Amino acid sequence: MSAADDARRAYDSKTKPRGSLGRLEDLGCRIAAIRGFVPDALEKAIVVAAGDHGVAEEGVSAYPQEVTAQMLANFGAGGAAINVLARRAGAALHVLDRGVGSPTNNMTKGPAMTAEEVERELAAADELVARLDVDVIGLGEMGIANTTSASALTAALLGVDPALVCGRGTGLDDAGVAHKVDVVRRALEVNAGEEPLAAYGGYEIAFLAGVVRSCARRQIVVLLDGFITGAAALASGVDGVLIASHRSPEPGHTLVLDALGLDPLLDLGLRLGEGSGAALALPLLDASIAILAEMATFDDAGVTDAGR
Amino acid sequence: MSAADDARRAYDSKTKPRGSLGRLEDLGCRIAAIRGFVPDALEKAIVVAAGDHGVAEEGVSAYPQEVTAQMLANFGAGGAAINVLARRAGAALHVLDRGVGSPTNNMTKGPAMTAEEVERELAAADELVARLDVDVIGLGEMGIANTTSASALTAALLGVDPALVCGRGTGLDDAGVAHKVDVVRRALEVNAGEEPLAAYGGYEIAFLAGVVRSCARRQIVVLLDGFITGAAALASGVDGVLIASHRSPEPGHTLVLDALGLDPLLDLGLRLGEGSGAALALPLLDASIAILAEMATFDDAGVTDAGR
Repeated sequence: MSAADDARRAYDSKTKPRGSLGRLEDLGCRIAAIRGFVPDALEKAIVVAAGDHGVAEEGVSAYPQEVTAQMLANFGAGGAAINVLARRAGAALHVLDRGVGSPTNNMTKGPAMTAEEVERELAAADELVARLDVDVIGLGEMGIANTTSASALTAALLGVDPALVCGRGTGLDDAGVAHKVDVVRRALEVNAGEEPLAAYGGYEIAFLAGVVRSCARRQIVVLLDGFITGAAALASGVDGVLIASHRSPEPGHTLVLDALGLDPLLDLGLRLGEGSGAALALPLLDASIAILAEMATFDDAGVTDAGR
Repeated sequence: MSAADDARRAYDSKTKPRGSLGRLEDLGCRIAAIRGFVPDALEKAIVVAAGDHGVAEEGVSAYPQEVTAQMLANFGAGGAAINVLARRAGAALHVLDRGVGSPTNNMTKGPAMTAEEVERELAAADELVARLDVDVIGLGEMGIANTTSASALTAALLGVDPALVCGRGTGLDDAGVAHKVDVVRRALEVNAGEEPLAAYGGYEIAFLAGVVRSCARRQIVVLLDGFITGAAALASGVDGVLIASHRSPEPGHTLVLDALGLDPLLDLGLRLGEGSGAALALPLLDASIAILAEMATFDDAGVTDAGR
């Protein structure tokens, strides 16, 4: 009997029609399957990795690169959206500075990172995850130009045309998107045959790929945020521990979700990043487990069960 | 300057790209518009009305009528899904016994209720709402056979064929749905020209329609659950204070949502009722307001704002 079967049997014993909580029940079964047992409650963390990207010098973002460092300070001061949303969700927030102010190489001129830099990020991620005693880690990111990085990574990993992947990021107009497509196309040409995560990823994206790999080894649920965390998960090569929190308007995100076989819990047009979508979905994960832990069974409550 | 404009301006001042929290920002603006001011935090209640339906004797539910009373006891003992979900959402739960054990008339033989009974329910609802000092009321219901009642009410109010409205409720098979369509068709014939809420509604549905009317007078946000609470809102004739929590698999629910011009926050295949979908959506309402109350502005945080 698997943990997912245990969870399903427990849902079926509760005072409600079989399956009537729909995807909430599937969610609880999925959490049990990943953890290997049915948790009584969920310990939760949000891990936000921030990094700077050399490709920002190509003018692919509506915001200047200095904003990455400014937002890192804002996370530290507790003023950003993810501070508010993680607190409301009851999740511990961990913000990681992955070389903010020291950008990767510009991927249009060669690989963004060396293999050693990627290994350093994967190792640092594993070290963090090993310290976190949690059931669920929500992923978040911050980095000016990182939708461009994620777009190139996705195009390379899935072998799709950049025009199908690139979107507005946090505020490009049509001309900006066309320029971004051109930048990604040049990066793909220059780095043909290179290892994709090193060629196109940023430090924060490699770090997040490392978090996913570490969670897979430790049977910790990974709750994805939007496009960039999804691309990191795709690059990690691991998919058994993933849950998608929301669908972003970035066209590349739907490609990533389809490739990972994930159907997101929310579709609210979020395009902020920072782990904001993951934090907003966490109450659904908590609710799925609370139903198992706290609801009465038909036997407890003396309610007639038509489903038997 | 309207309260919704105040909320929008406040979102735009926060350290995030304009509009990047998507529907969460629209939600906060909507709450502000309904309340007439931007709340600092939300006081929340879930109102669950339970009632029995004469039409249950037509065999339109997978469950026997005694389950309504059993579930009322389960609500009282704290063992039902809505007890768990309301607690997690930080909402006070109010369960109202609207004649459980004393069913309405069988609507296939004439109006389910008299005009006086409808008035009694509307008045009782107003008395309850007047006592609740809250920003948001989530609606819930329990009543064996009440999707049949809601289906007839919806078909009558929208002038659509019962076959387009009726669904599986909490567990009918294809033959059961066909029988339900036939029952609703007979009810519509017998009650042609009657006032719809009295003809087809149950006591709990009339009570919920009264809650909606009372909330409209008091500028309290009404967070709908699924099909039955939606039909009650449609019957209330009031729509300025409604937010839809989720889209249920009942075909009639989509008709009701379209008629009310509402786009639900969640789509999780929920078909339990009890206010479970409303409770699951409440954290999104809280988050929309917490962003306004707690996030830093560009000026506070010294972050460069590309959107100015």
